Amino acid sequence: MIHANERVHVSDLRQHVGRTVSVCGWVNTLRLQRKMQFLVVRDHTAMTQVTHRRGGDGDPVEAALESLSTESAVRITGRVVDNPVVKLGGLEIVPERVEVLNRAEAPLPTDERSGLEHRMDWRFLDVRIRPAARLLFAVQTTFEQGMRAYAYEQGCTEMHTPKLMGTASESGAEVFKLGYFNTSAYLAQSPQFFKQMAIAAGVDRVFEIGPVFRAEPSFTSRHATEFTGVDVELAWISDVEDVMRFEERMLAHAIALVAERHGDAIEETFGAELAVPETPFPRVTMAEAQSMLRADGWDPEGAKEDLDPEGERALAARMLKETGHEFVFVTHYPTGIRPFYHMRSADDPGLTLSFDLLWKGLEITTGAQREHRYDRLIEQAAEKGMGTDPLEDYLNCFRYGCPPHGGLGMGLARVLMVMLGLDSIREATFLFRGPNRLTP
Amino acid sequence: MIHANERVHVSDLRQHVGRTVSVCGWVNTLRLQRKMQFLVVRDHTAMTQVTHRRGGDGDPVEAALESLSTESAVRITGRVVDNPVVKLGGLEIVPERVEVLNRAEAPLPTDERSGLEHRMDWRFLDVRIRPAARLLFAVQTTFEQGMRAYAYEQGCTEMHTPKLMGTASESGAEVFKLGYFNTSAYLAQSPQFFKQMAIAAGVDRVFEIGPVFRAEPSFTSRHATEFTGVDVELAWISDVEDVMRFEERMLAHAIALVAERHGDAIEETFGAELAVPETPFPRVTMAEAQSMLRADGWDPEGAKEDLDPEGERALAARMLKETGHEFVFVTHYPTGIRPFYHMRSADDPGLTLSFDLLWKGLEITTGAQREHRYDRLIEQAAEKGMGTDPLEDYLNCFRYGCPPHGGLGMGLARVLMVMLGLDSIREATFLFRGPNRLTP
Repeated sequence: MIHANERVHVSDLRQHVGRTVSVCGWVNTLRLQRKMQFLVVRDHTAMTQVTHRRGGDGDPVEAALESLSTESAVRITGRVVDNPVVKLGGLEIVPERVEVLNRAEAPLPTDERSGLEHRMDWRFLDVRIRPAARLLFAVQTTFEQGMRAYAYEQGCTEMHTPKLMGTASESGAEVFKLGYFNTSAYLAQSPQFFKQMAIAAGVDRVFEIGPVFRAEPSFTSRHATEFTGVDVELAWISDVEDVMRFEERMLAHAIALVAERHGDAIEETFGAELAVPETPFPRVTMAEAQSMLRADGWDPEGAKEDLDPEGERALAARMLKETGHEFVFVTHYPTGIRPFYHMRSADDPGLTLSFDLLWKGLEITTGAQREHRYDRLIEQAAEKGMGTDPLEDYLNCFRYGCPPHGGLGMGLARVLMVMLGLDSIREATFLFRGPNRLTP
Repeated sequence: MIHANERVHVSDLRQHVGRTVSVCGWVNTLRLQRKMQFLVVRDHTAMTQVTHRRGGDGDPVEAALESLSTESAVRITGRVVDNPVVKLGGLEIVPERVEVLNRAEAPLPTDERSGLEHRMDWRFLDVRIRPAARLLFAVQTTFEQGMRAYAYEQGCTEMHTPKLMGTASESGAEVFKLGYFNTSAYLAQSPQFFKQMAIAAGVDRVFEIGPVFRAEPSFTSRHATEFTGVDVELAWISDVEDVMRFEERMLAHAIALVAERHGDAIEETFGAELAVPETPFPRVTMAEAQSMLRADGWDPEGAKEDLDPEGERALAARMLKETGHEFVFVTHYPTGIRPFYHMRSADDPGLTLSFDLLWKGLEITTGAQREHRYDRLIEQAAEKGMGTDPLEDYLNCFRYGCPPHGGLGMGLARVLMVMLGLDSIREATFLFRGPNRLTP
């Protein structure tokens, strides 16, 4: 279907001045004048101008260009000419052949001014035509690469834990249930139990990036029913501080890589400067955070055990002012609002050895040291009113030498949302899934 | 909980002779004699001996060692002593403190001689006590790292496509269905449609490693209801050869990395030498493969359109003999046994521009050039008797400038199974899922 010259990326054209090359991309704009035909072709790297002087009847290039529509997929073969007058890099292509590989229907069903829901209906076009959407996935790729590089260097093993579970063990309420041959299965809300099983299996440090599923009817800008989780679990930790130290270093490493490769593009596209955070990140206990916030008028009834989004934003603003830092670990959550498998403080069993990490006031991570002692787990599950029968496979892991361990779970789209200053998690996901959205 | 000396990996002990260190691991064996107590401790890197001369009443080390059981999780702090008599590296630890972090119940519910199903019931112990199982995940990590390194270098973008779908679009028969608020959803059988959407979205090259779900009641050694898929999709290809070339180079690169890091361990543990394949891999059309096999007596009725497992093994044996190569691409599958979205040969519409990749006679990949022309897709779907309504979101991608593209899907566990010479995909998966297995 495509022949002849090797494809050249538009961003590399400068190296091919004077030569005949092929570029593959989409028709960004078309300007068909009486004597001249101008085309701007865009590939995933850049845009370039194609300039053709009409040859009249029987000119196949003229005919092909005349047949085009915006967003058609084309392959243009022609000579690269240095022309300082041309805006796009001072280059143009004088076409010798134009192949229309897939003509786009007109009009397009969406454009840059379409509303969010409509853009999501036509997400493939939305991503293709908006530079901000395209940049997002390049940033995601680099960010994951940076996290993996750090995790591998720290001895992590990449695990793929099952998403199908036989019991709705974590809570039951927010779990999707499906028919499974003659029985039922559930979709994992997180790799939590399975990554702990990997720790019990002697895997020293677990790393996983994969989908997690939440049957929550939440319609906020930061919730999804399916999202990509980044999970880490570390064996033989001394305390939860080891987990926080791992996370802040992993993030600093990955953000530095993103800043290095995409910092200029992020600033240009999103108008946001990406600051590489210094480690350690500030830490504040939940009790300290609440008394600070209450002094500023938050939660006047003094009824809240947890921070609400307003409290998270207020805390972040205060910490930024006091420490200059965009990140803050909130630690020592009360036992009442954390799951049974969290380890509790030896000094105060009303507190868990846990944390959330906020970035610019949005929770991007939950983490903790886990309780690895079988008897304590049984007690804590009972105290939370959980039956131990559905937990049997999980609890067995703690009967035969499970080491102390802790870990964290991070929402990838939330991190990207904060990093790029996006309004909604929908913009930070390729194909968003929510209570009202299962398509495209 | 753990204090004092920094943890040292057992494989690094030689660098600490004469110093007091802590090692963290499991009790591999215990030998409690009248005067001496010997312990072999194993961490994820190696094993070492702990030697203690009993101190009598009030000796806390003696008491702690006496309390131990096999597979208990311990932290041993003591001096590293050079002792050429000791088998494990000519070193031993003379303990000053023994912390029992999690005592294992006795007896253990499984051992190295347990049957496969029983080992799977206790998979965390199975992985911990069998060196072959532990090595597998180290190999998996390196193999993925190698594939990603190649894919990134080739300009791939890491995408996370949804596993929840609104319609059972690919076929419907082998799809898990779940309740989704007031409607139903389906689990993706592959990222096929979504990675093509990413191509239509202008992502030049797509890379994804993630779970795929098959509601097939298959009980073979090579099928699972959930497995990890490695997916690649490439835009602007000239033909399907571009996809095969990408795959063989990606595999050669990743296998070379595995051989470099784990070649000796693989040979020692699995008794198999890991040969780094040369590129290009041999290619044979389905028609050629069948006539070669029929000449050797396969399928005497001449009724089979596809290769069966016996045919695949026979073909691999013959290709190995003729070319010395363990891999073979089988190309040009008949239209009748490939999905509607495969591109067909311009010369012979009865053939698709497709391939399977066999390694040592096991199919590890299916790939193809996709049909990107909307009209053809509509025709081909109709020809296969598929309604286009559930395909609407998918088909829309081809109306607005979708470039030519093709890709491949690879089963990660199958590759590991062949690489390490395992009998079953169950051994190549952390927590296997099959029609009869949803636990642990």
